[in-house]
Amino acid sequence: MGTPEDLALGGWDISSASLADAADRAGVLEPDLRRQLRPHTGAMVPLRGAYDPSFIADNQAPRADHVMPDGWSKQRRLDALRGDIRDFKAASGVDFVVVVWTANSERYSEERAGLNDSADALLGAIARGEGEVSPSTLYAVAAILEGCPFINGSPQNTLVAGALDLASRHGVAVVGDDFKSGQTKMKSVLVDYLIGCGVKVKTMVTYNHLGNNDMYQLTDGVMWKPKSAAKSRVIDDIVDGNGVLYAPGEARPDHVVVVKYVPFLGDSKRDVSEYTSETFMDAHYTTVMHNECLDSALCAPLILDLALLTELLTRIDFQVGGAAPSPDAPYEPLHPVLSVLSFYMKIPLTPPGEPIVNSLGRQRAAVENLLRACVGLAPESDLLLETKCVPARGGGS
Amino acid sequence: MGTPEDLALGGWDISSASLADAADRAGVLEPDLRRQLRPHTGAMVPLRGAYDPSFIADNQAPRADHVMPDGWSKQRRLDALRGDIRDFKAASGVDFVVVVWTANSERYSEERAGLNDSADALLGAIARGEGEVSPSTLYAVAAILEGCPFINGSPQNTLVAGALDLASRHGVAVVGDDFKSGQTKMKSVLVDYLIGCGVKVKTMVTYNHLGNNDMYQLTDGVMWKPKSAAKSRVIDDIVDGNGVLYAPGEARPDHVVVVKYVPFLGDSKRDVSEYTSETFMDAHYTTVMHNECLDSALCAPLILDLALLTELLTRIDFQVGGAAPSPDAPYEPLHPVLSVLSFYMKIPLTPPGEPIVNSLGRQRAAVENLLRACVGLAPESDLLLETKCVPARGGGS
Amino acid sequence: MGTPEDLALGGWDISSASLADAADRAGVLEPDLRRQLRPHTGAMVPLRGAYDPSFIADNQAPRADHVMPDGWSKQRRLDALRGDIRDFKAASGVDFVVVVWTANSERYSEERAGLNDSADALLGAIARGEGEVSPSTLYAVAAILEGCPFINGSPQNTLVAGALDLASRHGVAVVGDDFKSGQTKMKSVLVDYLIGCGVKVKTMVTYNHLGNNDMYQLTDGVMWKPKSAAKSRVIDDIVDGNGVLYAPGEARPDHVVVVKYVPFLGDSKRDVSEYTSETFMDAHYTTVMHNECLDSALCAPLILDLALLTELLTRIDFQVGGAAPSPDAPYEPLHPVLSVLSFYMKIPLTPPGEPIVNSLGRQRAAVENLLRACVGLAPESDLLLETKCVPARGGGS
Amino acid sequence: MGTPEDLALGGWDISSASLADAADRAGVLEPDLRRQLRPHTGAMVPLRGAYDPSFIADNQAPRADHVMPDGWSKQRRLDALRGDIRDFKAASGVDFVVVVWTANSERYSEERAGLNDSADALLGAIARGEGEVSPSTLYAVAAILEGCPFINGSPQNTLVAGALDLASRHGVAVVGDDFKSGQTKMKSVLVDYLIGCGVKVKTMVTYNHLGNNDMYQLTDGVMWKPKSAAKSRVIDDIVDGNGVLYAPGEARPDHVVVVKYVPFLGDSKRDVSEYTSETFMDAHYTTVMHNECLDSALCAPLILDLALLTELLTRIDFQVGGAAPSPDAPYEPLHPVLSVLSFYMKIPLTPPGEPIVNSLGRQRAAVENLLRACVGLAPESDLLLETKCVPARGGGS
Repeated sequence: MGTPEDLALGGWDISSASLADAADRAGVLEPDLRRQLRPHTGAMVPLRGAYDPSFIADNQAPRADHVMPDGWSKQRRLDALRGDIRDFKAASGVDFVVVVWTANSERYSEERAGLNDSADALLGAIARGEGEVSPSTLYAVAAILEGCPFINGSPQNTLVAGALDLASRHGVAVVGDDFKSGQTKMKSVLVDYLIGCGVKVKTMVTYNHLGNNDMYQLTDGVMWKPKSAAKSRVIDDIVDGNGVLYAPGEARPDHVVVVKYVPFLGDSKRDVSEYTSETFMDAHYTTVMHNECLDSALCAPLILDLALLTELLTRIDFQVGGAAPSPDAPYEPLHPVLSVLSFYMKIPLTPPGEPIVNSLGRQRAAVENLLRACVGLAPESDLLLETKCVPARGGGS
Repeated sequence: MGTPEDLALGGWDISSASLADAADRAGVLEPDLRRQLRPHTGAMVPLRGAYDPSFIADNQAPRADHVMPDGWSKQRRLDALRGDIRDFKAASGVDFVVVVWTANSERYSEERAGLNDSADALLGAIARGEGEVSPSTLYAVAAILEGCPFINGSPQNTLVAGALDLASRHGVAVVGDDFKSGQTKMKSVLVDYLIGCGVKVKTMVTYNHLGNNDMYQLTDGVMWKPKSAAKSRVIDDIVDGNGVLYAPGEARPDHVVVVKYVPFLGDSKRDVSEYTSETFMDAHYTTVMHNECLDSALCAPLILDLALLTELLTRIDFQVGGAAPSPDAPYEPLHPVLSVLSFYMKIPLTPPGEPIVNSLGRQRAAVENLLRACVGLAPESDLLLETKCVPARGGGS
Repeated sequence: MGTPEDLALGGWDISSASLADAADRAGVLEPDLRRQLRPHTGAMVPLRGAYDPSFIADNQAPRADHVMPDGWSKQRRLDALRGDIRDFKAASGVDFVVVVWTANSERYSEERAGLNDSADALLGAIARGEGEVSPSTLYAVAAILEGCPFINGSPQNTLVAGALDLASRHGVAVVGDDFKSGQTKMKSVLVDYLIGCGVKVKTMVTYNHLGNNDMYQLTDGVMWKPKSAAKSRVIDDIVDGNGVLYAPGEARPDHVVVVKYVPFLGDSKRDVSEYTSETFMDAHYTTVMHNECLDSALCAPLILDLALLTELLTRIDFQVGGAAPSPDAPYEPLHPVLSVLSFYMKIPLTPPGEPIVNSLGRQRAAVENLLRACVGLAPESDLLLETKCVPARGGGS
Repeated sequence: MGTPEDLALGGWDISSASLADAADRAGVLEPDLRRQLRPHTGAMVPLRGAYDPSFIADNQAPRADHVMPDGWSKQRRLDALRGDIRDFKAASGVDFVVVVWTANSERYSEERAGLNDSADALLGAIARGEGEVSPSTLYAVAAILEGCPFINGSPQNTLVAGALDLASRHGVAVVGDDFKSGQTKMKSVLVDYLIGCGVKVKTMVTYNHLGNNDMYQLTDGVMWKPKSAAKSRVIDDIVDGNGVLYAPGEARPDHVVVVKYVPFLGDSKRDVSEYTSETFMDAHYTTVMHNECLDSALCAPLILDLALLTELLTRIDFQVGGAAPSPDAPYEPLHPVLSVLSFYMKIPLTPPGEPIVNSLGRQRAAVENLLRACVGLAPESDLLLETKCVPARGGGS
């Protein structure tokens, strides 16, 4: 498995700032550290981004000083992105490239038959310059066509059906959607815990505020919609999976999700959650939680983990044929939609027919047990049965 | 498996209050409900308790109006308790009795060679009337000798080595120690989550306050000692098991445990926890949590679960001999120390050689996977590999 | 001064529920208490309300079963309300009537020259049946014309210029606007405290949620607008008054106000506030607060206090003429806009030229010092100078 | 009035670290800032401290590398401190010196007739080398004998009766005890607010933790006693002063004060408070608050304020003789015990007969109104009566 030391970094941005200048602007790392890093990051300037103002908030326009020319067609942009990937690979000498979307949330693209519902439709739409092909989808298509896995760290529908079809056709892995780093992750742990203990969650009121540029962009209501949807769905399977506490047809817990932009806070992200539950004899159980962390510090390690694990997963083949396959059963790679990485994503993308699992514990077990299988261990049952044998009995009393 | 409807309830108390009067005194349930229950609970008066003022706080003396005579020897008390169990079984007509210690925390008993380090030593000590045999140990011995499983819901060392030896000799199940219902449970979830995500917990500051009689008893420092120890140890294995974050020899997280008696609050238990952690680039991650619930409402369902599961576990036999035992390998019951119920206990008691697991997720998986095995299912791997096969590939692009 | 025992209660509602039935529907008081009160409240049925669906949310329509006929003109409604007040006074035998608006928030009325900018314009608009005369303004006008003080406990602009003009003309007291009971009140205390200590508040993020009918009504965005404005303005004078911390022209603190409807919680109101401030050497000071209380229990006592104090204030005359008026200077009542009751209101209404004071401490001092004056005491200086004299000196050392 | 720019700083410490080294050790200020300050602070080395290990915790011994020789008598230490003050004044050229105790909490000194109950007894005890004369009292006596006001920023009884007597004899101002900067200050605001609104506080549960050297010292139980007492008394007068809510003889609110040492946190002080109150119809009102700030950043500005205000107060004389003194009534300085600075102190020291006021609002008003008096303004009544006159009436309706 690769390590962070094996990585070479490159990328695109619609801002021309070098990594050093961007770090100064963001003010997340301490001044001393930034000063020490500048010799390394001062010359790292991103490639020009594929900017389409109809997909992100107007308030980003002042940053967009480093973009492909307005006149370029979607096809030309796609070709340029593919060239960028090839150039990066050649220049850096790496064996394998993973493309990760870490940029702002876009608005949703429209999904429509004939437009983006198959690989061919999508490629055709790009060729025709259809307005509803988003920049992020362009990057995804470029990556797939170059044989590079693509990971969508934002909530919009970058991976439209046509993009998934293209990924399947080329056998290229994709992971989606939206990095799960903060309150949503904690929520999936807490709600899973409470419901797993037989405590019936009745309200989940979750507030969030920070002041970085990502959040600034979300003050545009259209951009907020995908993010809001991503945050809202995260406990659905946990609630729906517990027919004892929540009878079919019974009302779901009241669920509030609010995110606010508070400029002074910069990258310091604060969230407050309140859960009110019913336990034994309908007694109320109220939980209030406040978290504070740097948004970037929560997110950056996910990017590294995802890149390293994705590369590893592309090298796994497994034998098809049930619990006891015949020795000559074929080996196959994992489905291109890498649902085993759901642990990292707010709205896990799964292969057709696979249920979405939001319980963080179950998501973690999936990664752990797959890696155990790779080294020849059975899944972790936590039973420790070998220690539970009765000792040899002594005589009676 | 039994259900709550199958249960008959009986027990001892050092207070003579009927269940109806005790409920009025506690003021936990609403007046309307208590009034409706009185016809059922007004006549339910506990049996006389085996009271030893050297083991609980002096402030309990005013309640102790319903106790075996001072003059009775330990042996006579033991015999009386055994008789009570037999009488209850006969009168109620139940098939199976489980004895659960739900009373106040006692102080620690001294453990000493020849006193209580073997079944014979312990029985001898009782016969001799040794002062260090606690009331709870008397109840445990009575239960074991009557073939009834014993569950210790408080933190003191009721299950001294001699009691465990006795349980083994008679093949009677025991579960220990201290119900895990509130802050400690939540802590094991949160710390497990944070560390499992690569977040390095550096401080755990946990405060607790309430005003019921249990807490009042703990204001006596001697009684607080076992409780404090129980609360402090709960994350040890989670931290120690992560050699990446916590190098051997490295300082453990700062850990503060405070419990305070606040009379006005009665059974309303409030806890506050603050966790400060280091994440990517040493960024600080601060989590503050406040919980409020009725202490009894958190604890009562554990008692029911434990009684029902314990009964079930005594009926499980498993084949010894590793992953692929020979068809005629012997079947054996579980070890009398029912570590599979660690999910419910603050300081899980395990058979010799079995490591203590405090991660609530792993504890839950143990119960779940044992029950799966009972119905012929493999342990849950959460892999869903069957849905991860590559679909038949279409033509290339 | 009157006491609560002196009060007789009456009023209007658009719902026909008796006080007993309304209390059952609200579920705020405990069942036992409601049962004991029913003999007194079962027969207390409100008078028919002046309902105008264009001023409150559509979701209130199902409750509106007890309203003046649709066909009644505004003038007829006004006349009916005046008759109701006279009838109540006669039937109850009270000396003095105070009318308090405790109903839902309405949307804003349009304010326009010739429509409601003078007493005559407003009375004319009512006579003509102008759509922009809100129900609450009708009640206010009815009260004023009957010589009864009117208190507006909601945030809408009931007391348009024309209503204030009418109050002046008749010398009838009015108090506005919006009861200040919960988070807003606490905010004015905390911010006043922090700024008063030289701590520079930079962000105020305030969230609120509950599930009663008042909140349900506010889910309609149009109704939320006045409430939001009322909550936002509350610290303006505190910030603006401190030129040391906030230079003229400098950015004001980031201020977020969110209110959410969470049906399960009913009348249980929870608020969360986070304040981030800068103190010495720009160190950050972060305060997070969570409150839980019954919304009604916070609000009901304000209504009693306001009614009793308003009556008292109408009996105060003071001598005009500065610090040392001549003995024969005239005595005058207080200005009809009773700004001395700002303590109770989110957006205190003041006489023309009087600055709005939001500091709760200063508002409280105003009440206290006025009452001190009534019994002949000087304003409280808190100096205790009489105890600060140097004792007679002894000999030197 | 002086400004911070007018100040010259000097002082004693039992550690030899320069201000620059001490700042590095404390790690409170950012590295960049410390680097910029070192040219100024690197050469600032404190004078040798009067160290007496019987008065502070043993854990401070490793820091005590810069102390007056063990063999020096108390009298010699006192003389040396007086000399230090004179030298400082001469070298710095300042007009006026204020001595502020900002060091660790000491244990209580015994107070005993003949030992320290009068100026003469205290001076005699020093001359005889009595063990119960604490280092802080030595500094206080040195300051008073040099005519310099002394401020005690810690909770121990530095200002024994003999020290107060000495201050009176010399007409030198003293201020005590214990800086009020964090949770205690906030508590006096919140409780004052709640009770002032008619909300009956029933529990105050207040937890505190941090990891600086001050806190480390308090882990010694003997040192903790004065601090605990200081924190506990702070709301007494607020509760006792409200006979409506708390009848004489009625139980006071449950009050818990816990402080814990959490090394990892360093100077980052966190406090959690929970208040449970009863409001209208006995509804519960629960408030939970969490604060985080640098302990030093809260405390340092108090030191500056106190020094500057104390100097100003020594220059105020007021005319004795009641509200309307005769023109030739004598002018006198304030009593040497400067209770007007109670705003800054946890356990305000007052002249004999003056009640202790803990309400922060009243304490602030005292400072404000005294300063108003100095510029010829009446106390602030907050009445704004001049704007409350009735406008000239127009014609009737």
